[in-house]
Amino acid sequence: MHWKKIPDAVIRRLPIYLRVLEEASRENQKLISSQALGERAGVAPALVRKDLAWFGEFGKQGVGYQVNYLINELCSIMNLDRKVCVGLVGVGSLGYALARYHRARALREPSFRTHLVALFDNDPVKWGQMVDDLEIWPFDIIKDKVKEMNLEVIIMTVPAEHAQSVADRVAEAGIKAVLNFAPTKLNVPSDVQVADADVSLELQRLAYYLKSN
Amino acid sequence: MHWKKIPDAVIRRLPIYLRVLEEASRENQKLISSQALGERAGVAPALVRKDLAWFGEFGKQGVGYQVNYLINELCSIMNLDRKVCVGLVGVGSLGYALARYHRARALREPSFRTHLVALFDNDPVKWGQMVDDLEIWPFDIIKDKVKEMNLEVIIMTVPAEHAQSVADRVAEAGIKAVLNFAPTKLNVPSDVQVADADVSLELQRLAYYLKSN
Repeated sequence: MHWKKIPDAVIRRLPIYLRVLEEASRENQKLISSQALGERAGVAPALVRKDLAWFGEFGKQGVGYQVNYLINELCSIMNLDRKVCVGLVGVGSLGYALARYHRARALREPSFRTHLVALFDNDPVKWGQMVDDLEIWPFDIIKDKVKEMNLEVIIMTVPAEHAQSVADRVAEAGIKAVLNFAPTKLNVPSDVQVADADVSLELQRLAYYLKSN
Repeated sequence: MHWKKIPDAVIRRLPIYLRVLEEASRENQKLISSQALGERAGVAPALVRKDLAWFGEFGKQGVGYQVNYLINELCSIMNLDRKVCVGLVGVGSLGYALARYHRARALREPSFRTHLVALFDNDPVKWGQMVDDLEIWPFDIIKDKVKEMNLEVIIMTVPAEHAQSVADRVAEAGIKAVLNFAPTKLNVPSDVQVADADVSLELQRLAYYLKSN
């Protein structure tokens, strides 16, 4: 039950709402107002209501949202009501750190909801090495592993000069969602969604808000 | 010359335009059309023109944009025409990897434009240790170092449970821009800009675009 026309900015806020709701649930709150949800998410209450209205009628006026019900609904909307398996390509220093970080958080936080289960690199020296309990596999076998392990999302931490060719192979393997840390705009088929996580883009964006000299 | 009302979505695309323009400049292109700029940035040409029109008249109809001129203008708009100094708080495995990654890229890419010059941690064991050529300092001295080194942006790679108290201290020290990797919504004064770089948010957002079961 997806409407393709829902703005990406709305989708971008859903995980933030989910995080706030899960905090509220851990605090044993049963109900949350759009005011409180908005405040904790850093979003205006009217926008919270508008965002959620894209997907249905979840709250009662003057009562608010049932916390656990809305968690379940958001998870279903975001496909997080099932196990989403993630692979990572490029186990350099950034990839290695992200892999360890992801595994540690997933262990600690049951609400992490995405599972890093496969690591790939094209350097034969790394093949067979372990990062915690995950083995590094040759990138060449990614297509088989995507099928075998039902991988749906790939994190790319490869150098910029290899990013496009890696993305081509990743798309060929049937992957529809890529989190790209390489500082390159990837050309992918229109049914593949790319999120750019390039740190330099975020830093440059923040610089805009600094005082001019 | 900033208009505070320019939508954040526009600001978010400026670094992407800058990256494309810098690629074009390296390829010795003198002019670029909004069509070509948009294609390489993954943005519709009409939106490119609309975005840039917020800041002035940069192109000529039928001619396009002068590449180097537009690079200079964008850098000036984004405060990247001066040295922007960045500090990082929390030198755990993610912080360590990001620090090394940032330094390596800044060395390789003159267009990186933000400079990581200070590392902080609250663990005495780490004080004095080096990450490449940067020493790790006690977090307690951040206020002095912000002044002394003219730090303007802080990358936070601290555990979620410490993120708010670190953010309070960072804001107190006079910092107006924070790149937050901790999975927590930070409460900061309204003149402090926070960018959330939490990997789990991005992965959950991508999951939305997967096929439902």
